[in-house]
Amino acid sequence: MKIVAVDPFYLKMPNITTDADGTQDTLVVRVRTDEGIEGWGECDASPLVSLATYCCPMSHGNIINIRQSLVGEVLRGSDDILRLHDKILRNALDIQQIDHAYSGTDIALWDIVGQKLKRPVYQLLEDQFGFSSQGIDHPKIPYASVLFGDTPEATFQIATRLKSQGFKAAKFGWGPMGQFDEKYDIELVESAREGMGKSAQIMIDAGVAWGSDYKTAYDRAEAFSQYTPTWLEEPLAPEAIEAYGTLSSLNPPIPIAAGEGSATFRMAEDLILNGKVDYVQIDVGRVSGITTAARIRQLAEQQGIQYVNHTFKSHLSLAASLHVFATNEDFNLLEYPADGSELSQKLTTEKLEVGTDGQVRLTEKPGIGVNIDLHTIREFLVSVKIELNGTTIFDHAVL
Amino acid sequence: MKIVAVDPFYLKMPNITTDADGTQDTLVVRVRTDEGIEGWGECDASPLVSLATYCCPMSHGNIINIRQSLVGEVLRGSDDILRLHDKILRNALDIQQIDHAYSGTDIALWDIVGQKLKRPVYQLLEDQFGFSSQGIDHPKIPYASVLFGDTPEATFQIATRLKSQGFKAAKFGWGPMGQFDEKYDIELVESAREGMGKSAQIMIDAGVAWGSDYKTAYDRAEAFSQYTPTWLEEPLAPEAIEAYGTLSSLNPPIPIAAGEGSATFRMAEDLILNGKVDYVQIDVGRVSGITTAARIRQLAEQQGIQYVNHTFKSHLSLAASLHVFATNEDFNLLEYPADGSELSQKLTTEKLEVGTDGQVRLTEKPGIGVNIDLHTIREFLVSVKIELNGTTIFDHAVL
Repeated sequence: MKIVAVDPFYLKMPNITTDADGTQDTLVVRVRTDEGIEGWGECDASPLVSLATYCCPMSHGNIINIRQSLVGEVLRGSDDILRLHDKILRNALDIQQIDHAYSGTDIALWDIVGQKLKRPVYQLLEDQFGFSSQGIDHPKIPYASVLFGDTPEATFQIATRLKSQGFKAAKFGWGPMGQFDEKYDIELVESAREGMGKSAQIMIDAGVAWGSDYKTAYDRAEAFSQYTPTWLEEPLAPEAIEAYGTLSSLNPPIPIAAGEGSATFRMAEDLILNGKVDYVQIDVGRVSGITTAARIRQLAEQQGIQYVNHTFKSHLSLAASLHVFATNEDFNLLEYPADGSELSQKLTTEKLEVGTDGQVRLTEKPGIGVNIDLHTIREFLVSVKIELNGTTIFDHAVL
Repeated sequence: MKIVAVDPFYLKMPNITTDADGTQDTLVVRVRTDEGIEGWGECDASPLVSLATYCCPMSHGNIINIRQSLVGEVLRGSDDILRLHDKILRNALDIQQIDHAYSGTDIALWDIVGQKLKRPVYQLLEDQFGFSSQGIDHPKIPYASVLFGDTPEATFQIATRLKSQGFKAAKFGWGPMGQFDEKYDIELVESAREGMGKSAQIMIDAGVAWGSDYKTAYDRAEAFSQYTPTWLEEPLAPEAIEAYGTLSSLNPPIPIAAGEGSATFRMAEDLILNGKVDYVQIDVGRVSGITTAARIRQLAEQQGIQYVNHTFKSHLSLAASLHVFATNEDFNLLEYPADGSELSQKLTTEKLEVGTDGQVRLTEKPGIGVNIDLHTIREFLVSVKIELNGTTIFDHAVL
């Protein structure tokens, strides 16, 4: 097969707010081949900045855009996906946005190769990365990923609703957490626990509230521990690796999770080796796709920590995320977007539904295994046109 | 003062090649205030991708563009520059390109505050960061920064020319280095040494040739050491921090330099603490400007290694770079672009000329201390227009 087209599409809801809700817009990428097979992927990134990475003029040998590097390339199997991953990142060595922007394309390439070989992506990854072949009969516990309510009462209501929907685990994040005082933070956690009930798992996402202040992060971990959360997530800024390391050395009474800010393998490796987190949370839509995410899964296995997805997008991203770690029985948690926008809910024609046992499984469909709904793309499409000196260098492709 | 406008301008040469020559295009940023003072800065980054970071629509509270965060803000002194640096990076937490894109603006803000207070930027930095006040009577040895010739013979010719121009130090990089075999690599270094003469300093820039292969990097360091280069630069990929650490532990016979790929404080910190480089090379046009570069200078001082600028742009970038470390006597080397394009040569109305003693000094002019040539901007301007759903969200500002 040859790659004949690489087309990003910018989709958005009519109204966008400052809420930490990543489903308000998105960038999806369609890759087409000369055999008629097409694949799709999704980035968790600024749509316009990422789209520019597909069409920016060459500046020199280290700033070459994704389309220019990719169109015309041969794609036979997963070896080629890794080769192209190296090539694109090398050609864009000096484009900082490259990892966010390329994520959607890398996912689409895995989708295409899976369709071509009639195999689900998790099997291709087993072969390519030598993951122990345990199959996928390791269903994951989906945790609803929601924002804290604006108050403890509102948080209690959200938690109660999630419990009634059957969720046995839920992560509460951002919103007022860390914005007022310790007492308020504790009340938020208490409300989440009370709403979800004693037997549920709850996770607390502090939304980088305490910067590099590991002391406050430790104090909160101690204060929250009476409510037995599974983890305290991103108490510190993504940059604050030294502070994460110090926090870890203090042995906080609840595990620490982080990693959604990782755009490169090294950022995750740095967080694991030097930040010494207990859970590493990887977004395939930011870390240059499935290829790098799979390498981070390998590292997590070597280091004996737990890999978890970070997903706050559609079920296309959710399925792509799950292929990376479906075959590891110990990696048993799945971030499961529960409150997404209409756009993210309707982006795929099928979903990874929660089973009757309350768990989530991949299917054996080839490729990523979920299909894009073109009606949704048409409904939410932002028509982007970029002109340089009067010449159009980008216009959205025909759907 | 209030910030009233933040305008990026994309400039390019008529023809762009794949040569590793960063002066073929550029992005300069003009910031205007309500008191009529304006400042300028330059990014070493993809112009279009960076420009998109100034105008991309909000996606949520962590993807807010630079203009939206900055226009209308108060700017009284350097405290405000640091406050705004935090704000912009926090508002763009999920825009990977933010550090490259914001660099030009941060430089422009230092330029403005210096003009307002009638003080050169290096003095503002002394006050803000508590650098020991040694003044700037510490001229730097400029090393010409050039690409290897395509052959050892061509490299010898380049070196001979630089020597005749009076350069007592020169860095040779990229081109054929690392692309063929060890013998060829050695011949390139030998030619550089012979052309420059025995008493000159030469630096070898391997242009990330050996990826994460620290063994080959060590072997080359050993093979090159007979020509006594000051350092071997970027033998490995920016990501390969573990490999840098291993290389360092092998005690190579010549010092190792790296860091131009650093877009964040942590990337430089990681390279210093874990990669254990001997020289850290920082580009103010990539690392979110002077503010972060000054913090990295502090770290280099604490760790006892040498800070060096990375500059492959105009003398606006060169002057901005020099303000960061002018006051440290031990940081005595200055990367000095010697072969830049017409665009980069003409971008400023004055240059940091090499003195009669062969060294380079800052002046005591307020701000950055060099002025932009508006004729050059008009001559090389790329008119950028971005439309979303038929509405123009970016059009280049009036000059």
